[in-house]
Amino acid sequence: MLKNTNLHADKPCLITGQSFQLPEKLVQDLIDNALREDFGRMGDITSQSVIPEDAIATVVMAAREDGVIAGLRIAEQTFKTLDRDLDITLHIADGETVTAGTELMTVSGNARAILMAERVALNFAGRLSGVASKTAEMVQAAGAHKATICSTRKTTPGLRMVEKYAVRMGGGMNHRLGLDDAVLIKDNHIAIAGGIVPALESAKQNVGHMVKIEIEIDTLAQLEEVIATGIADVVMLDNMNCDDLRTAVNMIDGRLLAEASGGVTLKTVADIAATGVDLISVGALTHSVTCLDIGLDFKA
Amino acid sequence: MLKNTNLHADKPCLITGQSFQLPEKLVQDLIDNALREDFGRMGDITSQSVIPEDAIATVVMAAREDGVIAGLRIAEQTFKTLDRDLDITLHIADGETVTAGTELMTVSGNARAILMAERVALNFAGRLSGVASKTAEMVQAAGAHKATICSTRKTTPGLRMVEKYAVRMGGGMNHRLGLDDAVLIKDNHIAIAGGIVPALESAKQNVGHMVKIEIEIDTLAQLEEVIATGIADVVMLDNMNCDDLRTAVNMIDGRLLAEASGGVTLKTVADIAATGVDLISVGALTHSVTCLDIGLDFKA
Amino acid sequence: MLKNTNLHADKPCLITGQSFQLPEKLVQDLIDNALREDFGRMGDITSQSVIPEDAIATVVMAAREDGVIAGLRIAEQTFKTLDRDLDITLHIADGETVTAGTELMTVSGNARAILMAERVALNFAGRLSGVASKTAEMVQAAGAHKATICSTRKTTPGLRMVEKYAVRMGGGMNHRLGLDDAVLIKDNHIAIAGGIVPALESAKQNVGHMVKIEIEIDTLAQLEEVIATGIADVVMLDNMNCDDLRTAVNMIDGRLLAEASGGVTLKTVADIAATGVDLISVGALTHSVTCLDIGLDFKA
Amino acid sequence: MLKNTNLHADKPCLITGQSFQLPEKLVQDLIDNALREDFGRMGDITSQSVIPEDAIATVVMAAREDGVIAGLRIAEQTFKTLDRDLDITLHIADGETVTAGTELMTVSGNARAILMAERVALNFAGRLSGVASKTAEMVQAAGAHKATICSTRKTTPGLRMVEKYAVRMGGGMNHRLGLDDAVLIKDNHIAIAGGIVPALESAKQNVGHMVKIEIEIDTLAQLEEVIATGIADVVMLDNMNCDDLRTAVNMIDGRLLAEASGGVTLKTVADIAATGVDLISVGALTHSVTCLDIGLDFKA
Amino acid sequence: MLKNTNLHADKPCLITGQSFQLPEKLVQDLIDNALREDFGRMGDITSQSVIPEDAIATVVMAAREDGVIAGLRIAEQTFKTLDRDLDITLHIADGETVTAGTELMTVSGNARAILMAERVALNFAGRLSGVASKTAEMVQAAGAHKATICSTRKTTPGLRMVEKYAVRMGGGMNHRLGLDDAVLIKDNHIAIAGGIVPALESAKQNVGHMVKIEIEIDTLAQLEEVIATGIADVVMLDNMNCDDLRTAVNMIDGRLLAEASGGVTLKTVADIAATGVDLISVGALTHSVTCLDIGLDFKA
Amino acid sequence: MLKNTNLHADKPCLITGQSFQLPEKLVQDLIDNALREDFGRMGDITSQSVIPEDAIATVVMAAREDGVIAGLRIAEQTFKTLDRDLDITLHIADGETVTAGTELMTVSGNARAILMAERVALNFAGRLSGVASKTAEMVQAAGAHKATICSTRKTTPGLRMVEKYAVRMGGGMNHRLGLDDAVLIKDNHIAIAGGIVPALESAKQNVGHMVKIEIEIDTLAQLEEVIATGIADVVMLDNMNCDDLRTAVNMIDGRLLAEASGGVTLKTVADIAATGVDLISVGALTHSVTCLDIGLDFKA
Repeated sequence: MLKNTNLHADKPCLITGQSFQLPEKLVQDLIDNALREDFGRMGDITSQSVIPEDAIATVVMAAREDGVIAGLRIAEQTFKTLDRDLDITLHIADGETVTAGTELMTVSGNARAILMAERVALNFAGRLSGVASKTAEMVQAAGAHKATICSTRKTTPGLRMVEKYAVRMGGGMNHRLGLDDAVLIKDNHIAIAGGIVPALESAKQNVGHMVKIEIEIDTLAQLEEVIATGIADVVMLDNMNCDDLRTAVNMIDGRLLAEASGGVTLKTVADIAATGVDLISVGALTHSVTCLDIGLDFKA
Repeated sequence: MLKNTNLHADKPCLITGQSFQLPEKLVQDLIDNALREDFGRMGDITSQSVIPEDAIATVVMAAREDGVIAGLRIAEQTFKTLDRDLDITLHIADGETVTAGTELMTVSGNARAILMAERVALNFAGRLSGVASKTAEMVQAAGAHKATICSTRKTTPGLRMVEKYAVRMGGGMNHRLGLDDAVLIKDNHIAIAGGIVPALESAKQNVGHMVKIEIEIDTLAQLEEVIATGIADVVMLDNMNCDDLRTAVNMIDGRLLAEASGGVTLKTVADIAATGVDLISVGALTHSVTCLDIGLDFKA
Repeated sequence: MLKNTNLHADKPCLITGQSFQLPEKLVQDLIDNALREDFGRMGDITSQSVIPEDAIATVVMAAREDGVIAGLRIAEQTFKTLDRDLDITLHIADGETVTAGTELMTVSGNARAILMAERVALNFAGRLSGVASKTAEMVQAAGAHKATICSTRKTTPGLRMVEKYAVRMGGGMNHRLGLDDAVLIKDNHIAIAGGIVPALESAKQNVGHMVKIEIEIDTLAQLEEVIATGIADVVMLDNMNCDDLRTAVNMIDGRLLAEASGGVTLKTVADIAATGVDLISVGALTHSVTCLDIGLDFKA
Repeated sequence: MLKNTNLHADKPCLITGQSFQLPEKLVQDLIDNALREDFGRMGDITSQSVIPEDAIATVVMAAREDGVIAGLRIAEQTFKTLDRDLDITLHIADGETVTAGTELMTVSGNARAILMAERVALNFAGRLSGVASKTAEMVQAAGAHKATICSTRKTTPGLRMVEKYAVRMGGGMNHRLGLDDAVLIKDNHIAIAGGIVPALESAKQNVGHMVKIEIEIDTLAQLEEVIATGIADVVMLDNMNCDDLRTAVNMIDGRLLAEASGGVTLKTVADIAATGVDLISVGALTHSVTCLDIGLDFKA
Repeated sequence: MLKNTNLHADKPCLITGQSFQLPEKLVQDLIDNALREDFGRMGDITSQSVIPEDAIATVVMAAREDGVIAGLRIAEQTFKTLDRDLDITLHIADGETVTAGTELMTVSGNARAILMAERVALNFAGRLSGVASKTAEMVQAAGAHKATICSTRKTTPGLRMVEKYAVRMGGGMNHRLGLDDAVLIKDNHIAIAGGIVPALESAKQNVGHMVKIEIEIDTLAQLEEVIATGIADVVMLDNMNCDDLRTAVNMIDGRLLAEASGGVTLKTVADIAATGVDLISVGALTHSVTCLDIGLDFKA
Repeated sequence: MLKNTNLHADKPCLITGQSFQLPEKLVQDLIDNALREDFGRMGDITSQSVIPEDAIATVVMAAREDGVIAGLRIAEQTFKTLDRDLDITLHIADGETVTAGTELMTVSGNARAILMAERVALNFAGRLSGVASKTAEMVQAAGAHKATICSTRKTTPGLRMVEKYAVRMGGGMNHRLGLDDAVLIKDNHIAIAGGIVPALESAKQNVGHMVKIEIEIDTLAQLEEVIATGIADVVMLDNMNCDDLRTAVNMIDGRLLAEASGGVTLKTVADIAATGVDLISVGALTHSVTCLDIGLDFKA
C-alpha cells in the first residue's frame, strides 16, 4: 500500500503509483474540468436550497464488487478541491485488490461540499478501477510467461494519462504514451515510404539518438527484412497466429523485442504469451471498460 | 440523414443532431485536448520521419460491427483540425443504424495530416457510437410503452455533453445535464433537511420559478407525502419492484412525472416500462460502454 | 448577517448569500481579470516608487450614501488576492441595509497591497451594491403583494452571475440565468415556428423532462391558446395594461405562473403587483445601475 | 463615419475609432466570455427546440432614444461569432449621434444564430452607447473652453478598455488606463512617503524617463510645493472650488498641466471649465451609466 | 541585500528588486510554462524510475564565474513549485556582485523534486544573471557621467519583463516596456506622417495627457525642428557621432531629454556618456547574452 | 529551400524544416505571447496616433551579417497574425546560409500592421538565426567525422522547441527534448540509487519498452560496469579527455552509442570528434547566443 499522502491542493506534487507519477497539474485540470461540466453556472442548487450551509456529514466510499482499485487519490483530491478542510482517510491504496463491500475511503465534513463532489469522485474512481481490474484480469490470464501486457493509444479522449496510470495499477505496462515518444512504423507508413528498408532508414536518419524505433509487420518475410536492417528496436507482430509468433520469436533470437498484437482476449492471451513474445498489447484495456461499481454511503 | 455540413473550423457554428446542438467551442476544445495528449511536444514523429511531406492518401472509415453511429462529425472535425484542406465526405449521419462493413466517411489529402488525426478521430467515433448503440438497444428493449429512456450523470469525466449527445443519437433523452439545471432531492438531502416536506418547501422557496424540482423516494408512503405537498414536478421511484411502480403510477395519476431508476437492464427494462412510468433512467448508457469497432483503411 | 467566513484564497469554497452560492472560481476569475486590466505589465508603479516596501496601513471602507450592500466579500477577496496576510474585518454582510457613513470593512497590513487593490475592490462593491439597492427599492415599491421581483438577462457582459447574486441580496429573485436553463418562447420564435401551438409542442418534444417552458404573449387571445395546450409552465404577459393583467390572472386561475414584463418602473410596479401576477421582471435592475458611493479612508 | 470594415473573425485586426484602436483579441475575449455566460452548457435551447435549423431571418437593430452610438462593431462581431455567414450592414458608425428610431444595423441569415447572439449584442451596444452618450453630454455642458473631459479608473470590472473606447467615441479623452502607465501620487502616498517633496523625488528616481508623473493636492500651499520641485508633469486639483482653481491655474502659468477633479456634474462642469484648467476628470462617465435603449426587430 | 522573503506559492505577492516589482502571476506563469515544456506528459522519468520516492538531498547552487546575480528568487520559486516543503536558503540577493565559487542558494528536501526543478531553475538564474552582468559591465564602462544606461525592446520573446528586471538588477534603467506605454516616433513614422511637425502634432492630439512623446532623429537640422514644436519630451539621437551628440546636447539646453542610441559598445559608451546625453540605450543588454555559469552540486 | 507554404493562420498545420515539424499551435502561442507582452493594453499607440489607418508600406527584412537563417516562417506568421492580408514573400528558407545584405523577406500592406509586428518578428528571427548560425559553426568545426552535434536542455525558458528547431536548421541534432522522452541517469541518480547497476536495473524495470536509457559516467571503470549490464542504449562520457574518449570508444565497440559532453568549444570539437564518439552535446548552442543581426527597411 502507498505510504505517501502528499497529494493535496496546497502542495504541488504528484500522484504516485509505484514508479509512475501523474503530474499534479494534469490531475487537477481533469478534476476541475469534470467539476465544471457538472456545476455549470451555479453548482449544486439542490444542496444549496435544501441543506443548511453548516451541515456536517460523514460518508464512506465502498466497492460494491470485486476488483483492483485505481484513482482513489483522484477521488480524494476531488473532495479536497471542494473543501480543503474535509477530513479524508484512505483505507486502500491504488493497485490493491478488493472484494465487494471493502471500504475504500471515509470523508467527513461539510455536507454540501461532500454532495457536490460525490458524483465526479465516483465517476473517476469507478472508471479507473474498471481499467485496473480489466488489466489485472488480463495479466493473470496471461500466466507466468515473460510477456508483459501493454495498453495502446485506444484511450478515452482526454483521459490518456490517467488510464495509462490505471493500467500500471492493474499490473500492466504501457506502450507509447503518444505519437511523439517513439517511432512506430505501420503498414501505411511502409506503403507510402516504399518498403520496410526505406522506411526504417528514413526513421533512423531523422529522429534523435534517444528515440526507439518499432515497426509493425504481418509476415515472416517482412520480419526477415526488418531483422536484416538492424535498425528496429522492437517489432510488432500483428495478427499472427501462435505458430507464426513462435517462429518469429525464434528468428528474432533476442536481437530485438517481439510484440504480439491483435485479437488478444482473456481466452487467447495465455497461448500468445506461451509463444515467447516479450510484449502483448491490448486495446480493450482502455477502449471498452466496465466501471467498477463503487458507491458512497452516508453514515448516521 | 443530416443535411447541414456547417461544421468546419472557419465557421463558428454547431454540431446538430435533431434538436440537440453541441456548442462548437466545446467540441473543438475536446478535440484540441485529445490531439494535445496524443501529440506531446512534437506530434507524429513517425510520419514526419518516414512519410514525404507532400504525400497524398485516401482513407475510408468503416464500421466493423453493427450499431448506431454518433460522433462522426467530431471525427470529421478532428481531421479538419489537422488540415483544413482535407477533402472529407460523410456517407452516414449521426443517429443512423449501420451494419458491419458500412463505409462512414472518406478522407483524402495530405497523408501526414490523416495519419496524425487517425487515432483521435477513431477514439471519438468508436466511443460515442458505443454509447448510441447501447442506448438504441435499451430503447428497443423497452418496447412500445410511453416510457422515455434517460441517461444519468454517471458519464466519463470531461465527456459529459458529447455522451449526452450520443444518447440522443441512440434515441434516448437526458435527465439533468449537471447539478445546476434542476433540483433533484435525494435520500441524504431528505435526511439532513429533516424530512420530505421541509426539503421540498426549502427547495421551492430558494430556487427561481424556472427551475424544476424532482425528489427521489423508495416507498409508497414517501410518495404520498410528496404528492400531498404539490411542490414536486417529478418523482424518482428508486429501486422499486414493478408492482410498487404500478401502484405508484396509479397514486400519482398524472399529477407529476414518474421516473423509475435502479437495476435497469436489457432484461428488466420492458417490465419496468410496462408499469406506466414516464421515464426510466439508466446509468449504464454512459458509465460502462464498449466502443463500437470502427476502423480506417487506406485505399490503394 | 452572514456567519460564514469561508471565502479566502487557500480554501476553494463559495460565496454565500442565503441560498445563492457563487462558485469560488467564478469570483476569483472576475477579480483576477479586473486586477489584470488595472495592473497591465507592472502593477502600481506609483506605490512601488513612492511607498516603502514594508509600509503598513489601516483603511476603512465606508458607505457614503444609504443603500443595500452586496459584493463586500468580493471586495475582501480582492484585497486577499494581493496579500493573503492582510487583516480584514467585515462589519456588514451582503444583503444588509446601511446608511451613509456606515463602516463596511477594515483592512490592515501592507500599504502597497492595499493601494493596489483599492480601486478594483471599490469598483466591485460600488456596482453590486448599486444593483442590490435598486432591487430593494423596487421590491419595496411593489408592496405587500405576492409578486416576486425578477431580474432579466439584460446584465453587464461578464458580470451576469454576480449581478444575479446582487439582485438576490436586494431581495429579488432571478429569471433564467442564461439561454440554456429553461425554455422561453418569444414572439419571433412563435412567428417562425408557425404559431403558439406548434412552438409549444415542438419545445415539449425536444427538451428533457427537467426543463421548464415559458411563453411570451401580448394578447388575451394568445393566452387562451397557451392555456389550452397545457404545456407551458409559465406565461409572460408582455406590456399588458393592468386591466388585461388582471383578466389574465383570472383566466389562468393558478394553472400556470403569470409573469408581467415591460414598462416596469418604481411608479408602476405597485399597480402591476396588485393585479395578482406571480412575477414581475425588470431589466433596469441590472442594465442601468448607479454605483452606490463607497469610499476608502486611511486611518492615521 | 468609419470606412474600414476590417473587423471580422477571420482577420486578426482592430476596432478603430479615430486614433483609439481596441485590440481584436481583447474584444473577441469579451464577446466569447459574454456568450459563454449566456450559453451555459447548451446554448439557446428554445431556438434549438422550436426554430427549424435552416430558418432564415432579417433583423434591424435600432435606437429607441437619442444618443451617441458606441460598440456597434462589437455587436456586429458578436453576431459574426455565432455565424460568419450572417450578412451584416452597419448604417451608423461608432461616435455618431442618433435620434430615436435611427436604424443602426441590419442582420440577415440563420435565424437560430441571430437569436443566440441577440441579447449579448444588445447588452454591449446599449451599455457602451450609454457611456458615449453620457460623455457627449458632459463635453457639451463643459462648453467651448480648452478643458478636456477625461474618464477615470472607476470602470466596470472587466470592461475597462471598451468603456475607455466609448468615452473617446463620446468626445472625451482618457486619464491613466491603469496603474502602470503613469504615476499618480495621491494623498495617502504623500502621507506615507513623508511629504510632497520626498514623494515626487522618489517617483522621479525610480521610474523610467518615459513615464509621466502627476500628483494630487487639495490646497494652494501644496501646489506651491509641487511647482517648486519642477518634477511633476501634471497636478490634480482635487475638490477645489472655482476660485481656488482659477488661482491655481494662474500660479501654474503653463509650467505643468492642471486637472480638476471631484464633484463634477452636468451643472458644475461649465464653471469648472471656465477656470482655465486643462483637464476635468469625471468618474460618473463610466461608473453610473444608463444603457441607451437599443432594440432588435424582426422584419417580415 | 533584499530583506523581504515574501515570494512563496501560498502568498500572491511580488518579486521585489529595489522599486521594480515583478507581478507574481507573471513569474509563476513563466515558471509553469518552462516546467511544462521540460516535463511533457510525465515529468522526470529518470528520477521516478531510479530514485526512491522518499529520498532526501541537499544541493547548493553556486556561481562558477564572476558576475551580477538576478533571477535567484525565480529559481527559488521554481523549486517551491515542485515541492512547497523544500527548505531553501538564499545566500545572495538579486543585484549583488559575486565571484566564482560564491554559494547562492541551498535547497534541502525531496530528491526527486530537486532533480525535476534543477534545469529550469538554472536556466532562469543563468540567463537573467547574464543580463544583469552585461548591464553592470556597460554601466561601469559608461563612467561617472549623468547618462543612464537603458535597455530596449530587443528582448527574448516571452521574457520581456524578467529581462527588464534583470537590467535593473544590473544597475540599468528601462526605456519603454512595450508599444503602448509611451510614444516613440521613428523615421518611418515621420516619413509616412509627412514630416516631423505633423507627426508630433498628430501624436500630441491623439494620446492622453499622461503619455510621454519621444522622437527619433539623425540630423541636427531635424533636432532644430523638434525643439521648435515644443511637443516632444525626449529626443533620440540615433547613430550620431560624439561631436554631433555634444552639439545636440547644447542645442537642447535642458528643454527635453537627450537619448543616444546606435553602435553602443563597451568601448564607445564612455565617450558617448561624456557628451552629456541623459540616456544611452543599448539593445545588446538583452538581445545577445551569455548565460552566467551557475551550477548545482549535491552535498554528501 | 522549403517548398511548402502551408503556414498561415487559417490553416492549422505545421512549420516544416526537413523532418522536424513545429506544431502550429505551439508557434502561434509563442507569437501571441510575444505580441501580448509588447502590446500591453493598447498596442502601438505611436502608429495609431501618427500613421493614417489606411497607409500602405513595403518593407524588406535583410541579414546584416553572415549566418544561417532560422525562424523566418515564425517572423512571417507574426506579420500574418496582425493582418492576414499582408502580402509576404520569403526569399530564403530556414536552414539556408546567407551573407550580409541578403534580402530574406518582403512584406507589403497596411503600414500600422507592419510596424506593430516588426520588433517581435525581428526578435524571433534574430535569436533563432543566432542559434542556427552557432550550430552550423560548431558542425563545421567538428569536421568530417561521424560525430553528430547535439543540443541540450540548457535552452531559454519557454523557447525549448523553437530553439531545438533552430539547432536542426543549423545542421545539428537534438538530445532529449525534455525530462520524459528518455532516461538519462546522472551522477546524482547513481549516488542516490546506490550505484550504476542498481540504477540501470531500476530504470529498466520501471520504464516502458519504447524508452531509451542513457547513463552519464566519468571514468573508464564506470564504463566497464555500464557495458557489463547490457542495459544502457547510450553512454555519456562526461568531461573525459580525448585519450579516455578514444579508449572508451574502443571498449564500447559499437555495443552502445558513445556521447561526449563537457567543455566542448569551437577549438576542442574537432579533436573530440576525431576520437570516434557518436555524439557530441553542446549546451552553448542554446544557452549563450548572439542574435544574428537582421533588420527591416522601408522601401520608398
